Amino acid sequence: MIALYHCQSARSFRVLWMLEELGLPYVLHLLPFPPRVHRKDFLELNPLGTVPLLVDGAVRMTESAAICQYLATRGGLTALAVEPGEPDHGAYLNWLHFGEATLTVPQTLVLRYRVLEPPERRQPQVAEDYARWFAARLRVLTATVWDREHLCAGRFTAADVSVGYALMLAHAVGLAETLPPPVQAYWDRLQARPGFSRALAQQNGPAPPFA
Amino acid sequence: MIALYHCQSARSFRVLWMLEELGLPYVLHLLPFPPRVHRKDFLELNPLGTVPLLVDGAVRMTESAAICQYLATRGGLTALAVEPGEPDHGAYLNWLHFGEATLTVPQTLVLRYRVLEPPERRQPQVAEDYARWFAARLRVLTATVWDREHLCAGRFTAADVSVGYALMLAHAVGLAETLPPPVQAYWDRLQARPGFSRALAQQNGPAPPFA
Repeated sequence: MIALYHCQSARSFRVLWMLEELGLPYVLHLLPFPPRVHRKDFLELNPLGTVPLLVDGAVRMTESAAICQYLATRGGLTALAVEPGEPDHGAYLNWLHFGEATLTVPQTLVLRYRVLEPPERRQPQVAEDYARWFAARLRVLTATVWDREHLCAGRFTAADVSVGYALMLAHAVGLAETLPPPVQAYWDRLQARPGFSRALAQQNGPAPPFA
Repeated sequence: MIALYHCQSARSFRVLWMLEELGLPYVLHLLPFPPRVHRKDFLELNPLGTVPLLVDGAVRMTESAAICQYLATRGGLTALAVEPGEPDHGAYLNWLHFGEATLTVPQTLVLRYRVLEPPERRQPQVAEDYARWFAARLRVLTATVWDREHLCAGRFTAADVSVGYALMLAHAVGLAETLPPPVQAYWDRLQARPGFSRALAQQNGPAPPFA
């Protein structure tokens, strides 16, 4: 049985969403954020203290976009994976990484230095630098979803989950106004998926993130 | 023919290294850093202005760790890929992402706010925050390479290229002293590979990075 350690609306939401899209059975362990402060016993399971942690038999993974890719072929090939034989395989891998390294990380800097740090450690310049970085990186996404329902391969894939979470985070972090209309429309389409709704319900509805 | 747009010792070095390990033919376009400032014509090819840019027929990719994975199966399965059937497939995917999102990105903050920004925009606290972050994240790597030659699957893979580049960057950014002895020894083993030497030679030797 798959076990997922998750904090509400944190990166581990990607994994929860994938599990619901794939209909895989799993046990959800919901932790307070940040677990390294509020659940020190979690450090015994994951010395990094980060979520997600996925445990699947002997497999242990901590990188949310990597887990999305892993789950998409875990029980054999599914439509959520784009395999090497398909023309969009390269685009699929690129979006999986882009969603985390390029679109999510800059937002975590905005969140950290605008909200999470105590007032004397806040860094308005750094938050502004990375809010701009995020906005600049959105241009490629806008050009892609302008006239397409999904990012690649003509269907919903794990790449949409990776990038979609970055858009969910943008709303939580206060960067929603940065999203150009085609990107917001894409995000609205993703939220309309039953798998997304089930994942939200599993973490007890759309309550404030990082509670 | 594969085309790689690369800046000396930047993230695109991962791709150069993979190309040399695999013995694939390619054309190397060496750009001054940062290309978005010094080669504005590059923005026509990659609106993000970032390296790497890989062009392979209709395939265009910009995320270095994703390109490593792509190249490892581009002409059919190679030993540098760890496929879904292998027990370490999950670990392989996790290290590919960990090398970039978790080990490289924090170092780019140190570099930016300690070196690249003009003095009045430098942020010693942020550089220190992410130098510590990097050091903390190395613990998992130390535990892995302590008694193993490679990260996973008992052989050299694209995951070693992803993580190896983060260790190369640590030396360029001034974080080499952060590397625990087992991690430094792992990095020494990687540098001894002929494919690594050929990649270094292709970018004109180990000259200062970001020149």
